[in-house]
Amino acid sequence: MAGKTLDELAKHVGGSVVGNGSIVIKGVSTLDKAGPDEITFLTNKKYVPQLKTTKAGAVITAEALETETPLLVAADPYYALMQIVVLLHGHRKHKKVGISKRASIAQSAKVGDNCNIHDFATISDNTRIGANCQIYPGAFVGPNVQIGDDCIIYSNAVIYDESVVGDRVIIHANASVGQDGFGFATHEGVHHKIPQIGRSILEDDVEIGACSVIECGTLDDTVIGKGSKIGDAVAIGHGTIVGPYCLLVPQVGVAGSTVLGHHCVLGGQVGVVGHIKIGNMVRIGAQAGVSGNVPDGATIMGSPAIDAGKAKRAYSLIGHLPDMRKRLLKLEKQADQSRAEK
Amino acid sequence: MAGKTLDELAKHVGGSVVGNGSIVIKGVSTLDKAGPDEITFLTNKKYVPQLKTTKAGAVITAEALETETPLLVAADPYYALMQIVVLLHGHRKHKKVGISKRASIAQSAKVGDNCNIHDFATISDNTRIGANCQIYPGAFVGPNVQIGDDCIIYSNAVIYDESVVGDRVIIHANASVGQDGFGFATHEGVHHKIPQIGRSILEDDVEIGACSVIECGTLDDTVIGKGSKIGDAVAIGHGTIVGPYCLLVPQVGVAGSTVLGHHCVLGGQVGVVGHIKIGNMVRIGAQAGVSGNVPDGATIMGSPAIDAGKAKRAYSLIGHLPDMRKRLLKLEKQADQSRAEK
Amino acid sequence: MAGKTLDELAKHVGGSVVGNGSIVIKGVSTLDKAGPDEITFLTNKKYVPQLKTTKAGAVITAEALETETPLLVAADPYYALMQIVVLLHGHRKHKKVGISKRASIAQSAKVGDNCNIHDFATISDNTRIGANCQIYPGAFVGPNVQIGDDCIIYSNAVIYDESVVGDRVIIHANASVGQDGFGFATHEGVHHKIPQIGRSILEDDVEIGACSVIECGTLDDTVIGKGSKIGDAVAIGHGTIVGPYCLLVPQVGVAGSTVLGHHCVLGGQVGVVGHIKIGNMVRIGAQAGVSGNVPDGATIMGSPAIDAGKAKRAYSLIGHLPDMRKRLLKLEKQADQSRAEK
Repeated sequence: MAGKTLDELAKHVGGSVVGNGSIVIKGVSTLDKAGPDEITFLTNKKYVPQLKTTKAGAVITAEALETETPLLVAADPYYALMQIVVLLHGHRKHKKVGISKRASIAQSAKVGDNCNIHDFATISDNTRIGANCQIYPGAFVGPNVQIGDDCIIYSNAVIYDESVVGDRVIIHANASVGQDGFGFATHEGVHHKIPQIGRSILEDDVEIGACSVIECGTLDDTVIGKGSKIGDAVAIGHGTIVGPYCLLVPQVGVAGSTVLGHHCVLGGQVGVVGHIKIGNMVRIGAQAGVSGNVPDGATIMGSPAIDAGKAKRAYSLIGHLPDMRKRLLKLEKQADQSRAEK
Repeated sequence: MAGKTLDELAKHVGGSVVGNGSIVIKGVSTLDKAGPDEITFLTNKKYVPQLKTTKAGAVITAEALETETPLLVAADPYYALMQIVVLLHGHRKHKKVGISKRASIAQSAKVGDNCNIHDFATISDNTRIGANCQIYPGAFVGPNVQIGDDCIIYSNAVIYDESVVGDRVIIHANASVGQDGFGFATHEGVHHKIPQIGRSILEDDVEIGACSVIECGTLDDTVIGKGSKIGDAVAIGHGTIVGPYCLLVPQVGVAGSTVLGHHCVLGGQVGVVGHIKIGNMVRIGAQAGVSGNVPDGATIMGSPAIDAGKAKRAYSLIGHLPDMRKRLLKLEKQADQSRAEK
Repeated sequence: MAGKTLDELAKHVGGSVVGNGSIVIKGVSTLDKAGPDEITFLTNKKYVPQLKTTKAGAVITAEALETETPLLVAADPYYALMQIVVLLHGHRKHKKVGISKRASIAQSAKVGDNCNIHDFATISDNTRIGANCQIYPGAFVGPNVQIGDDCIIYSNAVIYDESVVGDRVIIHANASVGQDGFGFATHEGVHHKIPQIGRSILEDDVEIGACSVIECGTLDDTVIGKGSKIGDAVAIGHGTIVGPYCLLVPQVGVAGSTVLGHHCVLGGQVGVVGHIKIGNMVRIGAQAGVSGNVPDGATIMGSPAIDAGKAKRAYSLIGHLPDMRKRLLKLEKQADQSRAEK
């Protein structure tokens, strides 16, 4: 790898250099492990002491820090890091395989230019796939599905019939999109399956993690909004709408018919009940349980979820309950005595 | 689609019409989106105001309501909805592919009449599959498995050796049935794998969600009882018995050797420890943590789970703990002062 | 099955017989279901009463108990059980299929002696697989992957490019190893994907459950340490290091860049935040939420997680909060009255 000088990197990200800008950087690594021809980054103050010991050739930071290591100062250092990793390492390269004879492609399916459809992938009837898509081995695309351009469907991911997938969507291994919503009418003790006739729609630039599951809707569509990123092992219920640019961290579960606004961030293992409305830019702490509407801009945590500022203190007091109870009993005893003495 | 008159639909579900029964209904949609040739439903009073604005041709309800929209009044409107969705839209249609030459079918396997075994599906040695089954691309059925009639095994679902699957069972994409239970004997710090010799049994009419995992038993069988419906991303431990007609919502986890009665409903992300007994008709709220036996008919929630009526109030008081503590400290101070004054 | 005498079994596990050692044992079953030619075990005192009713030919115990049933007394009865199940039943047998012509194996890939590569399995470019491995139908092994000897990759499991897998590793159905970490740089409201250039490394003797997901690292590697066993539906974040000989029960989630020591045990649905350090031999109760460093040897539970001894009492007091609040209000009222009377 030829590498780039620190000056070139700074120019690339619109940042500035403190120190020797002519050193050549060939890769990106951590503060711990970076060597002299690698750049690293520092966005968390907790790691400032490691500046003294790092062997990195340069460090991306938000401001000039006291150190002998050359710095690349950028207004948004994590964004600069992303740009530099893309520049020096790039995204995953996909093999040119064309359309494999060992794939199963329905005659009525249409596949765009420059796609790679691997062995054992299935493209079903009346499905349309745009240009420049990668369909990995074992991926299954059901009938009447629409997939846009530049999508990556990793190995053994499954897309059920009628689903709609935008451009630049990534679906990771063993995810499932558009499977039947969990909908049953219970009558005289027997659960009768309700055909789930809504679709599952992934808008442009969505990414779905491995083993995540996005149900189709019962009557309405399930929608993952533009630019939203869904982690691994996330479950989205039927008819739920995730707004644009949300981040749903691994193992989140959102039940059906709930609506999330834009730019929401849900921490790991968060659970959200069905039929509620979460506003825009809501932040929900890991493992929170949300059972009611949440206004725009709220930050909540805990199960049941409450305002995060309050929750931190409140939930940490659970550990004090035995002590509180003991003191309460003591006060009661004192009060009883006091009354008896009167 | 030809459609049915509202009168015909009412007759089909055993309900009655309020208003014009001769209108023609071609499909089912939501209160929000239904048009004049569609029917919708209203089971949640919260949505009554939408009756004024809906453009639906008709609404299924439990009782006559004040509205100009024709009503289909049914004793169990959600069940009526199901019947009408089945009538007008039907369940997913499965392509007739017969037994694909690109499937992998062991010579010793027996496949019943009228099955569709798709490309890249595997049916292993000594496995028996009944009639009218759909085995989608990439599905794997291991050796010595028994599958009944009218089953649907969706794409890339995996059924391990020796599993037993009843009639009319549906297994969704990327689910795994019968994989090894999590069983190890730890000896001198090393975890030794215990062969898991029990089976995984899915009784008739069971449905297993996408990416759900049903372990086989260690010595005993794991059983999902007749008519039980398991959501997506659910984990069932080795040797656990889920009784008939239970509903386990997505992301539920039940550890090994636990026994659930019939008609239990477990909300999203509920966790149940191993080796306990949950009675019949037990309802467990989302995210609850259950670590002890639960009697028949109980409704519980919270982690740890307690009686739901009590839990709602108790868990909501966690947010009041800082205030309660403050007031407790104040009382203590007052009591101290009071004693000092004596 | 020929079987073994109880004496032979005792000799095999280094235990001793109480009662008739010449009876022949052909299999292992539960206290409940074992018949006269089967052995069972008793490690939990809760089940001692069943000794009177069991029809088992013999019982493995830790000490001599009063019973007419012959006993196999072993210092570590659960370990003895494992040895006997292995002796009498054995681990799963894998079919000899050699390298199927219906597998997809890159020319540049190297496959060791005596491997079974099934139909529809994919071995990608420059990947090396050791000897005696089982690669089940539909399993996908990406480019530049290294896999050691004696591994089992079950059906439809996916291993992304560059991953490293040691010897005797088992990966269950529909698991995903090495998929992109959940890493995005959010800039002006848009989430930009950061190429994840770290690897995912599974050391020797690791087992990964069905539908579990092990992200690759962002810059550093994700590592599952030697002998660690990961249950089903577990999610491990990018750059996280799980030390050797840990047990992570189903549905556990550990966020990125966290380090676990050796011999940790995480109960079902435990959540651990990113960037923290969990010591050695830490035990974490089911559903716990861990958001800070944990010292060696700690046993914690609850969300937020605290010392387990304290947690048991503290969390069970949540149900008493309404009562505590009522009594607090009463005391306040009494104090007010008391002051008013002065």
